Amino acid sequence: MKTYKLALLGFGHVGQAFARLLMRKADQLADEYRIQPVVTAIATGSRGRAIDPNGIDLWAALNLIESGQMLDNLSAEPAPEDNIAFIQASGADVLFENTPVSYLDGQPAIDHIRAALEMGMHAVTANKGPVVYGYHTLTALAAQKGVRFLFESTVMDGAPVFGMTRETIPAANIHRIEGVLNSTTNLILTHMENGESFDEAVRYAQSIGIAETDPSGDVDGWDSAIKISALITVLMKTPFTPDKVNRDGIKEITPEKIAAAKAEGKRWKLICTAEKRADGIEAKVAPAMVGPDTPAYTIDGTTSIVTLESDVLGTLSLIEADPSPITTAYGLLADLINAVKGRSAKG
Amino acid sequence: MKTYKLALLGFGHVGQAFARLLMRKADQLADEYRIQPVVTAIATGSRGRAIDPNGIDLWAALNLIESGQMLDNLSAEPAPEDNIAFIQASGADVLFENTPVSYLDGQPAIDHIRAALEMGMHAVTANKGPVVYGYHTLTALAAQKGVRFLFESTVMDGAPVFGMTRETIPAANIHRIEGVLNSTTNLILTHMENGESFDEAVRYAQSIGIAETDPSGDVDGWDSAIKISALITVLMKTPFTPDKVNRDGIKEITPEKIAAAKAEGKRWKLICTAEKRADGIEAKVAPAMVGPDTPAYTIDGTTSIVTLESDVLGTLSLIEADPSPITTAYGLLADLINAVKGRSAKG
Repeated sequence: MKTYKLALLGFGHVGQAFARLLMRKADQLADEYRIQPVVTAIATGSRGRAIDPNGIDLWAALNLIESGQMLDNLSAEPAPEDNIAFIQASGADVLFENTPVSYLDGQPAIDHIRAALEMGMHAVTANKGPVVYGYHTLTALAAQKGVRFLFESTVMDGAPVFGMTRETIPAANIHRIEGVLNSTTNLILTHMENGESFDEAVRYAQSIGIAETDPSGDVDGWDSAIKISALITVLMKTPFTPDKVNRDGIKEITPEKIAAAKAEGKRWKLICTAEKRADGIEAKVAPAMVGPDTPAYTIDGTTSIVTLESDVLGTLSLIEADPSPITTAYGLLADLINAVKGRSAKG
Repeated sequence: MKTYKLALLGFGHVGQAFARLLMRKADQLADEYRIQPVVTAIATGSRGRAIDPNGIDLWAALNLIESGQMLDNLSAEPAPEDNIAFIQASGADVLFENTPVSYLDGQPAIDHIRAALEMGMHAVTANKGPVVYGYHTLTALAAQKGVRFLFESTVMDGAPVFGMTRETIPAANIHRIEGVLNSTTNLILTHMENGESFDEAVRYAQSIGIAETDPSGDVDGWDSAIKISALITVLMKTPFTPDKVNRDGIKEITPEKIAAAKAEGKRWKLICTAEKRADGIEAKVAPAMVGPDTPAYTIDGTTSIVTLESDVLGTLSLIEADPSPITTAYGLLADLINAVKGRSAKG
C-alpha cells in the first residue's frame, strides 16, 4: 500500500465531485491498486483554504462548503493565499489544478502546473487551457522530472480519448479527427428538432446548468475550437491554438433549416474536424448535416463523439453518452491512478 | 534501443500481415519506442518452419509463402516439428500464437501460450479460444513470471476494447456490455436491406472472403457468443464460456421482417448483451430491431461496436469502421509494444 498526498487547487463542482468519488472508491483503490490517496491541501476561490499533512477530512470540507462556511478551520498550519506558495507548501505528490482559467493563454493554470511539476509532483487538470497553450512544454518538464502531466477530463469529460490514444493505440499515426465535442450546442440542436426556438432551447440548457448565462462561448463554437485544438495538439503531436480554427457557430441554424434537414432524413450537428495535409493541419468547427450512415447522427443531447482516422486502424470512434456530474471527476481519478502506477507505452 | 526476438507460431493471413506491418513500422518503433523487433522463428501449418537466432528475412519468408514454397531453407538450425518444442527452441522474448484453434476448449493454443509464459516469454494471440477458456489461468501465470498475456485482436480486430478497459478506465466497474461483434452477419443483414435474399447475401460475404464456406459459425451466433464470452471474462473479471450464452442467430430474419423494420425506421442487428445481476451474469446473442436513438443503428457492413456501462462513466461506446486486413495485425503490434514497454495500471 502506498499513500499519495493530493492537493486540490480549485474546489468547485469538479473538485467537490472528485472529493466524493475519492471517498466512494477508497476501498477499491486500496484493494485493486494498493493506492491510498490522502488530500492534504484544498484551496477554494472564496471559501478559504486548508493544509494538513495528516489529511483533511473530506466530509467536513464538503459540509463546510455546502453550508456556506470557510475551510480555514480545517488547516493544521498556515495556508498561503498565493497559489504558487500554496502548491509549494502543500507537500503533495499530485496537484489537481481546477481553478478558473483564461482561454486566451491558459493562465494562471499553466503557472500552477509548472510549479507543481518543478517540485516533482504529478499534475492533473480538467482545464483545457494548459493543454492548448502548454502541452508540449509541460509534458517535457514532467518527463524531465520523472512525473506525469495528465488531463483526461478536458475533452469529453472522463471518456478516455487521450488515454486511449496514448496507452492503447501506440505507433498509430492519426491524420484526421472529427467530433461533436460541445454538449450545449448539441443539446440546443436536439431541442430545436423537437420544435423549440433557438432562444427556448438556450433557456432550457441554462435551466439545467449546462449553458452559461452568456452562452456565446458554446454557441459561437469557441469551446469546440478549444477542444479540437487540444486534440490536435496531443493526438497529432503538433501545437495548435483555437485562433487557427476556421470557426462557425450554430446561430445560423434556423428552425427552417432543421426542418429541411429532417425532410432529407438528416440532422444538423456542430462538427469539429482536423486534417493533416501536406501544408499543415486544417481545423474547422462548423454546422453540418449528417445522415444515418455516420455515428454522429445518433448523438443526442449532451452525448459526444470523437472519430480518429489513422494509418493502422479503420476509423475508430468513441462515444460518451449520458455524462453525469461524476464523469469529469472520474477522469481526474483515472489520471491519478495512471500517474502514480504506470508509465506510458511511449519510451 | 532494445532488441526483442519474436516467434510467430502460425503464419496465415494474420501472421503474414503482421510481418508486413513489422517491416513498415520498423523505423517508427525504433525512433519512438526504442524497440527493435527481430523475428527469430516462424512455424507454418503446411509450409515448413524456420529458426534463426540472428533474425529471419521477412521479405524472403513472405516471398516463399506467396510462391508456394517451404520456409525450411531459411532455418539456421533444426526447427522442431512439435509446437511446444518449437517454442522452447525459438529463444524468443515474445510468442505470437495464431494457429488453428478449437472453439470448444481453446486448444492447442492454450498449451502453446502456457509453454511460452513458463519460459518467461510474453504471449500475444489473435485467437479467442485461449481468452475464453484460459484467461484467468494464463494471466495469473504471466504475472507470476513477470510477463504479459495480451489478445487485443480477438474482438473487434485491433480496436482497443481490451486495452481501453485495462489501461484507461481503471477502477471502473462494468455492469453491462452490448455490441455488434460479428462482421459476417452484419454484412449479410446490410445486404438484405438492399434487397438481396439471405442466400445471396451469404454468397456475397463468401465471395469477399468474410464468410466461411460453412457460414453457420457466424450465422447461428456462435462467433458472437464466443466474443461476448471473452468480453465478460476479461471486462467483468468473471470466467464465462459460450455455452452459457442464450444464443439465437439471424436465420429467422426474413426479407419481410427487414422490410417491416425499415417501415418503422428501424434496422435488424445481431446484438450481443451481457448484464451483471444479483444472481450472476446473463448473456444473450439475438437479433433485435434498433432505432436511430442508438449508435448500433449506424453500424453498416463489417463495422462493429461495443458499448460499456459502468459505475463511473456514462455509457461508453467504441466503434471500429472499415476494418482492413492490417487491423488485426495492428492489434498484435499494439500488444507487442504494450507487453515490452509497460506494465498495466493495475497494481
